[in-house]
Amino acid sequence: MAEHIRVVLVESSHPGNIGAAARAMKTMGLRHLYLVRPQRFPDPRASARATGAEDLLAAARLCASLEEAVADCHLVLGTSARPRRVAGETLDARAGAGAAVGSGGRVALVFGRERTGLTNDELDRCQATVSIPCDPAYSSLNLGAAVQVLCYEVLLARRKQRPAAAGAPAGVDAPPARADELEHFYDHLEEVMVETGFLDPARPGQVVRRLRRLFGRARPSRRELQILRGLLSAAQGGRSRPRRGRGRGAVKAHDQQI
Amino acid sequence: MAEHIRVVLVESSHPGNIGAAARAMKTMGLRHLYLVRPQRFPDPRASARATGAEDLLAAARLCASLEEAVADCHLVLGTSARPRRVAGETLDARAGAGAAVGSGGRVALVFGRERTGLTNDELDRCQATVSIPCDPAYSSLNLGAAVQVLCYEVLLARRKQRPAAAGAPAGVDAPPARADELEHFYDHLEEVMVETGFLDPARPGQVVRRLRRLFGRARPSRRELQILRGLLSAAQGGRSRPRRGRGRGAVKAHDQQI
Repeated sequence: MAEHIRVVLVESSHPGNIGAAARAMKTMGLRHLYLVRPQRFPDPRASARATGAEDLLAAARLCASLEEAVADCHLVLGTSARPRRVAGETLDARAGAGAAVGSGGRVALVFGRERTGLTNDELDRCQATVSIPCDPAYSSLNLGAAVQVLCYEVLLARRKQRPAAAGAPAGVDAPPARADELEHFYDHLEEVMVETGFLDPARPGQVVRRLRRLFGRARPSRRELQILRGLLSAAQGGRSRPRRGRGRGAVKAHDQQI
Repeated sequence: MAEHIRVVLVESSHPGNIGAAARAMKTMGLRHLYLVRPQRFPDPRASARATGAEDLLAAARLCASLEEAVADCHLVLGTSARPRRVAGETLDARAGAGAAVGSGGRVALVFGRERTGLTNDELDRCQATVSIPCDPAYSSLNLGAAVQVLCYEVLLARRKQRPAAAGAPAGVDAPPARADELEHFYDHLEEVMVETGFLDPARPGQVVRRLRRLFGRARPSRRELQILRGLLSAAQGGRSRPRRGRGRGAVKAHDQQI
């Protein structure tokens, strides 16, 4: 079982697809299912399609928001049928599964709504977008089928990895930052951008999204995030008030031998 | 479209699975569907699950026997959930797809019944058995999901066969920043760190190296670097003097619709 990887389904409308996703996960050795505001769940159609994976449905976590479902994750991968302009790094299913399996921390594989996928705001919360290769003339993968393909690649990646020693991705300080820590950093960054007059909150444009994308690609470690937040605090000088998650997060470069 | 490859479903009992198989095929660029004695077909549940791949259902060939469905094929690959004693060569999904795509002639990918798969007699008619890797503790792939995974591998094998098109790194704004632009950014960053009191130049520690590593991993585009430099300039307020490469590099977020 790949205990560190969860599947998150956002606002699934067909309960049958939830059951199919559970079955797909279980065949590939995954078992942690998170459901963000499913339209109908529990539902007998979900159980019928799960056929033997009802235990995953029974243990599924219901969440009020994507934020809640991924808060403790270190890597959040959002799936998208088509390349999006807003998307940061885009990985194909194999590369995405490799990143998930190779990650040192908890990983969320996030799947959007049947018709419309994930919103741009939701994709902004993901460090990278995973796209399943398909025929561009008809790219309409069923939700359960998309879960199946990605979980299949996860299984292959795990089998490939096993003989090799598992380790942190090269060049990254362990442990990686969690999604909620990254969100606090983005909040802080935006605050500094506004305070310094760099960003006009009335006309934010795409700049915040672009910086999210940049940092999302880099997958900062917790320590790197501390440095960045320390720098932001220094840039604010004495101007600002205490902020959520800041006291323990930010450091001065010379407070310690970083 | 992979015109030389067909999918053959033998005695499928659930019409929904036939629809799901058609949709799975179409997303991966396959279109020739052969149905050997389906229990119920045509059926509205097949059409409902096909969602956009009804054309494959309409063109599906109904056959009285597996023999008839594969008569004109040069390579017949039978799928099996578990290794069978009767099976000849057993390939995993990737190797099976590679064999199918590489074959000079017509190929059949044969899928058995939902509960019992292919009989030994039917597997005897296949040149090789294809097995989709899965968790041995729960190997019960749904029929449509199995078709999805194998067709996905066929698509990948076809793309691999074609010469890969060179392109910009995915998800990164073109053009990427040059090394000298990156160095100017690091100089600027260090300057701000010192000016804000974040970095004591007498005791720099590892912080600069750590930030270089972080940004190096992200491979910033030229545009992203402009944003970062604009933010650094804003953090400096009126304090600083013009700097190499700065005039053309830095922007304010609201100078332009970034």
